[in-house]
Amino acid sequence: MFEVNQKVLFRHCDPAGIVFFPRYFEMMNDCIEAFFDEVLGLPFEKMLQTGGVPTAQIQTRFVAPSRHGDDLALKLSIIRVGSSSLDYRMQAVCGDQLRFDTAATLVNVNAKGRSSPWPDMIGTKLIEIKDITQ
Amino acid sequence: MFEVNQKVLFRHCDPAGIVFFPRYFEMMNDCIEAFFDEVLGLPFEKMLQTGGVPTAQIQTRFVAPSRHGDDLALKLSIIRVGSSSLDYRMQAVCGDQLRFDTAATLVNVNAKGRSSPWPDMIGTKLIEIKDITQ
Amino acid sequence: MFEVNQKVLFRHCDPAGIVFFPRYFEMMNDCIEAFFDEVLGLPFEKMLQTGGVPTAQIQTRFVAPSRHGDDLALKLSIIRVGSSSLDYRMQAVCGDQLRFDTAATLVNVNAKGRSSPWPDMIGTKLIEIKDITQ
Amino acid sequence: MFEVNQKVLFRHCDPAGIVFFPRYFEMMNDCIEAFFDEVLGLPFEKMLQTGGVPTAQIQTRFVAPSRHGDDLALKLSIIRVGSSSLDYRMQAVCGDQLRFDTAATLVNVNAKGRSSPWPDMIGTKLIEIKDITQ
Repeated sequence: MFEVNQKVLFRHCDPAGIVFFPRYFEMMNDCIEAFFDEVLGLPFEKMLQTGGVPTAQIQTRFVAPSRHGDDLALKLSIIRVGSSSLDYRMQAVCGDQLRFDTAATLVNVNAKGRSSPWPDMIGTKLIEIKDITQ
Repeated sequence: MFEVNQKVLFRHCDPAGIVFFPRYFEMMNDCIEAFFDEVLGLPFEKMLQTGGVPTAQIQTRFVAPSRHGDDLALKLSIIRVGSSSLDYRMQAVCGDQLRFDTAATLVNVNAKGRSSPWPDMIGTKLIEIKDITQ
Repeated sequence: MFEVNQKVLFRHCDPAGIVFFPRYFEMMNDCIEAFFDEVLGLPFEKMLQTGGVPTAQIQTRFVAPSRHGDDLALKLSIIRVGSSSLDYRMQAVCGDQLRFDTAATLVNVNAKGRSSPWPDMIGTKLIEIKDITQ
Repeated sequence: MFEVNQKVLFRHCDPAGIVFFPRYFEMMNDCIEAFFDEVLGLPFEKMLQTGGVPTAQIQTRFVAPSRHGDDLALKLSIIRVGSSSLDYRMQAVCGDQLRFDTAATLVNVNAKGRSSPWPDMIGTKLIEIKDITQ
């Protein structure tokens, strides 16, 4: 499990004083970017020179609202590793309360935006991480 | 069916030159806000004084990338009307190409953030719209 | 004078119920993008293939707050046309009330990000527009 | 001097692969929010219950572009402390290269959005910080 802490900041919140849901997707993207950088050694700024990992599908339940100042923990698990894709799950909790629960699929693409097999080392590492976290 | 046109602007796009997916969720939110204003006569700026319609769950398939300058049409259908919720589907197309396909649930809440029945007139109108668009 | 209407939407607003100031800069960027497209016939999505017009400096007074639902008019004037730059002024009003007042400089750059003279036709057109609006 | 580190992330960048300037203003707001929380002991989420510190004016020179992956240091100095306002300067550097240079004024407001004197303790602390950093 990879975990990132994110305080709910002023810029995340809407007139109702709670996180505006598109901002949650920015938090998720930040978390995935940190995972690729810190765990896979594959920072997005390098990966983008030859491709990327766009989101193919994402589904999120917003279980309870988050307020300005809340300390969130974003917990990422790798669920399935395909030849050129991966499924992840991400949950945000504040203390012991679940805030959102996401399941998504990323696809590894080449410079032309076509799906492309994971580099061997990355595929192997993703499978190791998946096995550890389950 | 309610439809909104949205050109893909500079601010929507990422370093890969395509729409950054959290920006799609901002477009969806703008479309829902326009629907409540123009079709239901219930602008968000008034509704927020006594509650709101937060998103309880949303799932999106990003079928094909959208590039800067693309003219998108966002097409909204009401799928189910509950006593205090509604399910919608929203598709974005560029010409005859599908870009994203979303299914989501909104919940009507009161000033305390608790789910609350639709006002009679709104519930009736939502059901009429649902029946017309199916 | 080039003018764009922009309703203050949910996504623009902060927990205080007023426009979050970085969102104003997104509105300004949208207005400049529309001006280049509609007035100069130079849409950003084409210009970006060979360069761009990054903002070199910007200064803004936020004269009065804007609330969710306010109908803003963004009024753009060209103040000075340099060989590879331009100075503009942009004011947002709601009815007869000034909301922000911006002065900024854009620089025309080539694909390497170096400042580059305006194409003749664009330079000429900018000077015409400047003379008309003053 | 108060300093915050901010890596340039995917979400900050535009199709030209550099920071989209409205995102810089979000970084500045995050830095100010951290300063009020960590240095003044006045987190925005508490302050907002009785007022806030909206930006009255801001001016920024974007001296050099920042690319995805750059490690920025945001350096904040208090320049002037008024009875109900403060002037700050913020510079972002990457290594020894200046990226932006901002001067801005914040105003302390009450729950009605009217300018309001700093609480004694905060005013005193701001003056101390100003004297130390100059």
